[in-house]
Amino acid sequence: MTIAEERATANRFVLSEDEVPQRWYNLVVDLPYEIEPPLHSTEERLALEEDYDWLWPSECLRIEFLKGRYATDPWIEVPEPVLRTYTRYRPSTLVRAKGLEEYLDSPHRIFYKREDLNPGGSHKFNTALAQAYYAAQDGVETLVTDTGAGQWGTALALACAAFGLKLKVFMVRKSFDEKPYRRNLMRMLGAEVISSPSRTTGTGRDVLDKDPDSPGSLGIGMAEAIELVRSEPSHRLALGCMSYYAAMHQTVIGLETQAQLAQAGVGADVLVGCVGGGSNFTGFVAPFVTGSDRPLCIAAEPASVPTLTQGEFRYDWADYERQTPRIPMYTLGSDFVPPPIHSGGLRYHGKTPILSSLVKNGLITPRAFEQQKVFEAGQLFLRTEGVLPAPESSHAILAAIEEARRGGKPRTIVICLSGHGYLDLQGYADVLDLG
Amino acid sequence: MTIAEERATANRFVLSEDEVPQRWYNLVVDLPYEIEPPLHSTEERLALEEDYDWLWPSECLRIEFLKGRYATDPWIEVPEPVLRTYTRYRPSTLVRAKGLEEYLDSPHRIFYKREDLNPGGSHKFNTALAQAYYAAQDGVETLVTDTGAGQWGTALALACAAFGLKLKVFMVRKSFDEKPYRRNLMRMLGAEVISSPSRTTGTGRDVLDKDPDSPGSLGIGMAEAIELVRSEPSHRLALGCMSYYAAMHQTVIGLETQAQLAQAGVGADVLVGCVGGGSNFTGFVAPFVTGSDRPLCIAAEPASVPTLTQGEFRYDWADYERQTPRIPMYTLGSDFVPPPIHSGGLRYHGKTPILSSLVKNGLITPRAFEQQKVFEAGQLFLRTEGVLPAPESSHAILAAIEEARRGGKPRTIVICLSGHGYLDLQGYADVLDLG
Repeated sequence: MTIAEERATANRFVLSEDEVPQRWYNLVVDLPYEIEPPLHSTEERLALEEDYDWLWPSECLRIEFLKGRYATDPWIEVPEPVLRTYTRYRPSTLVRAKGLEEYLDSPHRIFYKREDLNPGGSHKFNTALAQAYYAAQDGVETLVTDTGAGQWGTALALACAAFGLKLKVFMVRKSFDEKPYRRNLMRMLGAEVISSPSRTTGTGRDVLDKDPDSPGSLGIGMAEAIELVRSEPSHRLALGCMSYYAAMHQTVIGLETQAQLAQAGVGADVLVGCVGGGSNFTGFVAPFVTGSDRPLCIAAEPASVPTLTQGEFRYDWADYERQTPRIPMYTLGSDFVPPPIHSGGLRYHGKTPILSSLVKNGLITPRAFEQQKVFEAGQLFLRTEGVLPAPESSHAILAAIEEARRGGKPRTIVICLSGHGYLDLQGYADVLDLG
Repeated sequence: MTIAEERATANRFVLSEDEVPQRWYNLVVDLPYEIEPPLHSTEERLALEEDYDWLWPSECLRIEFLKGRYATDPWIEVPEPVLRTYTRYRPSTLVRAKGLEEYLDSPHRIFYKREDLNPGGSHKFNTALAQAYYAAQDGVETLVTDTGAGQWGTALALACAAFGLKLKVFMVRKSFDEKPYRRNLMRMLGAEVISSPSRTTGTGRDVLDKDPDSPGSLGIGMAEAIELVRSEPSHRLALGCMSYYAAMHQTVIGLETQAQLAQAGVGADVLVGCVGGGSNFTGFVAPFVTGSDRPLCIAAEPASVPTLTQGEFRYDWADYERQTPRIPMYTLGSDFVPPPIHSGGLRYHGKTPILSSLVKNGLITPRAFEQQKVFEAGQLFLRTEGVLPAPESSHAILAAIEEARRGGKPRTIVICLSGHGYLDLQGYADVLDLG
C-alpha cells in the first residue's frame, strides 16, 4: 500500500483499557553503559539514600538510588491503585497526522501520541499519580513542588485530590503572573499556589533582594520547595521531572506507542519529543532506544535554553540552592536563570541524568529551535490537525516538520504530544502578534 | 452484577472509526406531532425558502424549510468530506463517571459523553464542519457568525480552515473582553473577530448609542452578522444553534451514545444536557425521544435565563433586529438582554423550535439552575473525574448530580459533556472566589 492509499484508511490507533501497560520499563538495567552515581550535595562522597530520606517519599528514593530490584529488574509492576486510575484515561490515542501530512505534501507518515488529553492536560499525570500514591503509603500529609507553566502543578493537584494529600506549589513567577488560568485551575483543585521567588523562604528572599523583578525559574522554585520540606517533617517533595522515577513512570507512553505502531503495521523511524527536564521524552523513547533497530530519537529544546546542544556534561545540582545530590548531566549551571520565553516547562538549566547519558552515548540526538518558528509550527498544527499543542510540544512538532520536509523513502515519524496549549494562548498571541 | 461490581470493570466505551454514524437522524419526520412552520420576518404570511436565500447556504435552507427528502426521510447521509473528517475525531468516548459515583455514594450509574475533546473543544465542530462544507459547495467566500463564549466561533474557524473559507465573527462583548484566550484562538485560526455590539453595523451603533456599556448578547451578535451578510453577496450566515440543521447534525452524539450504552449493556433512564439554543441537547436525545421506552430527558438552563422554565411559547425572532423568520418557540423576547453570567453559550433569549416543541409536548423536562451551584458542580467534577467542564456543561452535571442523589433502584444517567472549561477559568475563579 502506498502512503497515499494508507492516508485513505485508519486515522486513530486505540487500545482497550486492558492493554494499559501493567509494568513500567526500568530502562537503566538494559543500558549498554553505566550511569555515574549521584554525589552528596556538598561533601566529596557518594550520595546515600539516608542523606535524603527527609526529602523524598521512600519509594521514590529507592527508585532514584536504584535500590533492590530497581538495580536488576527491567520490569516494575504498576501498583494496583495507580493502574486502576491509569485505566480511566489510558491508553492514550495514537493519531495519524493526515492533515499535516497533506499540508506538507510529505512522502512520510506522521503520527502523534495524545498525552494532551490526559487529566490535567499533559503527560505529567502519569507520574504525579504514582508519586502521590507513594507519599500516601508513607503517611505524608503534604506534598510540596515547583511548577513552571503549571502543567506539573495541575497534574499533581489532581493526584493529591485522588489520594487525600495536601499540596503546596511554588509557581515560577513569570507563569504565575502571565498564566492566571493555570493558577486558578490548581486552586480550584485545592492546592496552595505561591509565586516564586517568594518571601516565604530564605532562598526566595535572597533572590528578591538581589533582583526584585526576578522572573523566577524551575531551579529557584525547586530550591524554595526543598527549603520548606526541610523545615516540615510531614512534608515531602514531588518532582515532575529531574528524577529517574518520573522518567520511568512515563515509559507507559513509549510502551503504548510500540503496541499502537504494531497495530498500524509500521515501525518507528524517527521519534521526536520536547525536553524540559526530560521525563516525557525519555519515557517515550525508552522502549525503542536500547533495541537493535533504534530509530532516530530527536530531543527538541529551546535555542534560548540550549542545555543539550551547548551545555556542559558534568556533575551539577538540580536546584538553585545546592541542596539536592549532585548529578551527572548536561547543564547550563544551576545558577542559570533562563530567559522568560513562553515555554515555561522548558525553562530549566539541566537535563535529567538518564536523558543526559543517552545523549552523551549517542543514542539520542538533541536539536535546538527558535521560539518564533516553534510557535508557527504550533499554529500550523492547530490549523491542520484541529489540536492546539502546548508551546513545549510545539518544539517537537517543529522537529517533526523539519524531518517530514526531507525527501527520501517513506519514513514513520512519531511525535510525543506532551500537552495542550489552551492555557498558553496569551503566549501564542504575543509571539504570533494576534493583537 | 451489582453496581459496585460493575464499577470494578469497564471505564470507557470506545467505538472504532468505522462506527461513526454515516447518517444524521432527521427527527422531525418521526415526531408524533407537527411543528408549526416559520413565518415571514415582518409580513403576515409563511416564510419561504426564497425569502432567505441571501442569508443561508442553500442546503442549510433546504433542511431548515424541510424541503424535498428532509420532509420525509428520517435518515440523511453525511456528505463524504464531512464524514471523512468526522472519522478523524469521532466517535467520541463514553466514560463511566466512577470518581463522581463513588464520591456521591450513589446507587446509580453515571456516564458522560466526551464532546469536550473534539477539535475546538466542544460539540460545535459537528455542525460547523457540515455548514462550512455546504457553503463551499455554493461557492460562498466568507461565512459570518456570532459567538458567545467563543466555542462556536472556534469550531467554525477550524471548519473554515478545512474548506478554504474566510470567517468573520461577531463575539459578544462580555466574552470578547473577559475571554481573550478564545479571541486569540479564533485569530490564530485566521478568523476576523469583532466585539459586538460594534460600530461596524447599524444595529451595533444603535445599541451602543442607547447603552455604551452594553455587554452584548447572542441576539445582538446575530443581528450584526445578518446585517453584514445582507450587504455582501459573497457572504453567508452560519449558526451554531437556533437552527434545525445544527440540531440534526448533532444527532451523531445521540446515535453514538445509543451504540455505546448497548456496548455497556445498559439502557438510558435519564439523559441530561445544557441548553443555550438547544442543538447539543437535541442531537443528544433525538434517537431516544421518540421511542416507546423514552428516558427522562432533562434540559438544564441557567436560572437567570429561564427560557424553557419561565418563558412564553409563541412566535418570535431569533435575532434582535427581527430579520430572521419568526419561529415558534419558548422565548423571553427577542429584545431580552441576558444578565452577564459566565456561561456565555447560554445567554440567549429563545430555544430552537425543535427543542421548544419537544418541551411543549412533554417529551423533555426543563430545569433551571443557579450559577453558584453550577460552578461548584463543575469543580466537583474536576476533582472527581479529572475533567474540567465548560460552565455550560456544568449545568448538565449539576442536573445529573441531583438525579444521582435520589434513592430508588439503580438507574443509568448519561450526561452530554458539551465542552471543556479551560478557557473559562477566570469565570470559575470569580464565582468560586479563588482569588
